[in-house]
Amino acid sequence: MPIVTIQQFPRSLEQKRLLAEKVTDAFVEAYGAAPDSVQIFFQETSKEDWARGGQLGSDRDPS
Amino acid sequence: MPIVTIQQFPRSLEQKRLLAEKVTDAFVEAYGAAPDSVQIFFQETSKEDWARGGQLGSDRDPS
Amino acid sequence: MPIVTIQQFPRSLEQKRLLAEKVTDAFVEAYGAAPDSVQIFFQETSKEDWARGGQLGSDRDPS
Amino acid sequence: MPIVTIQQFPRSLEQKRLLAEKVTDAFVEAYGAAPDSVQIFFQETSKEDWARGGQLGSDRDPS
Amino acid sequence: MPIVTIQQFPRSLEQKRLLAEKVTDAFVEAYGAAPDSVQIFFQETSKEDWARGGQLGSDRDPS
Amino acid sequence: MPIVTIQQFPRSLEQKRLLAEKVTDAFVEAYGAAPDSVQIFFQETSKEDWARGGQLGSDRDPS
Repeated sequence: MPIVTIQQFPRSLEQKRLLAEKVTDAFVEAYGAAPDSVQIFFQETSKEDWARGGQLGSDRDPS
Repeated sequence: MPIVTIQQFPRSLEQKRLLAEKVTDAFVEAYGAAPDSVQIFFQETSKEDWARGGQLGSDRDPS
Repeated sequence: MPIVTIQQFPRSLEQKRLLAEKVTDAFVEAYGAAPDSVQIFFQETSKEDWARGGQLGSDRDPS
Repeated sequence: MPIVTIQQFPRSLEQKRLLAEKVTDAFVEAYGAAPDSVQIFFQETSKEDWARGGQLGSDRDPS
Repeated sequence: MPIVTIQQFPRSLEQKRLLAEKVTDAFVEAYGAAPDSVQIFFQETSKEDWARGGQLGSDRDPS
Repeated sequence: MPIVTIQQFPRSLEQKRLLAEKVTDAFVEAYGAAPDSVQIFFQETSKEDWARGGQLGSDRDPS
């Protein structure tokens, strides 16, 4: 605990490495959590597997 | 908000496109939600990664 | 299967009853699913337990 | 997108406010994300509803 | 790791205590996992917050 | 119901088959659940998509 699950579009290994560091630091600073208590899961979603406004990401304008 | 996560066996792009439309319409009609407030995530699961009655989907009779 | 999880602010029983009907119909129409195969979970979140733009819902303007 | 779900023991409003800010900043810095694209959900779990090592949190030594 | 999330109707503390033991044993026996690596979260759902066949649990016959 | 979601590193089909049996048995024994009421989802995560202590699994020492 805590367990952090992140639903996102695919990101590079370097971006995920940096994010994992910063999110863990956020728990250390805001909660006084031990870094090793923080586990993070990235759940990457393709544009075919996400929709907003009733429209799949793969059907929307690039943005 | 709302965030809708759908765990399902793989479906075609056309089926997911149609479902995303209809599920979003459901929130508009039942809640008066703005369509753009509705995000949908499809989490597709293979038959090896799901079980019912203690038996993996890949070991069950086709149905 | 499918399993549908909806993260939302609290809604009335009547709104959830109506939404559950319409979301289930969406699966029947788009996938040809059997109604009894569709399970829906509502996970209601208070405004203190959700944030957008780095700000808790309870700290944002009413909207 | 991204959607961040945090499973944790209950925390004070002030701690969640601070964490939401810092986690959102992490996405801005690591991904260049727009702050408003980041949604965070806190799922707070009581000690009766979590286990580690086969033992409920409420049965473990205080820590 | 592994992280186990259980969506269920409310159960007694004694039932959850017993289940947590047995599920953890399952990971030890099937995977050779260390017991302390297994974390379990119970997400209890009321009958108003679950539906099957388009009908809320609270509207269904008792079963 | 119940729905069990397992976040784990990839395991062999044989290990998942065995685990699904044993976890289902746990619900039968602890809750008196009908085996067919238990659905299990395996969400397998690669070492690039998980972090602990602010470090991606793929950057940690093998263990």
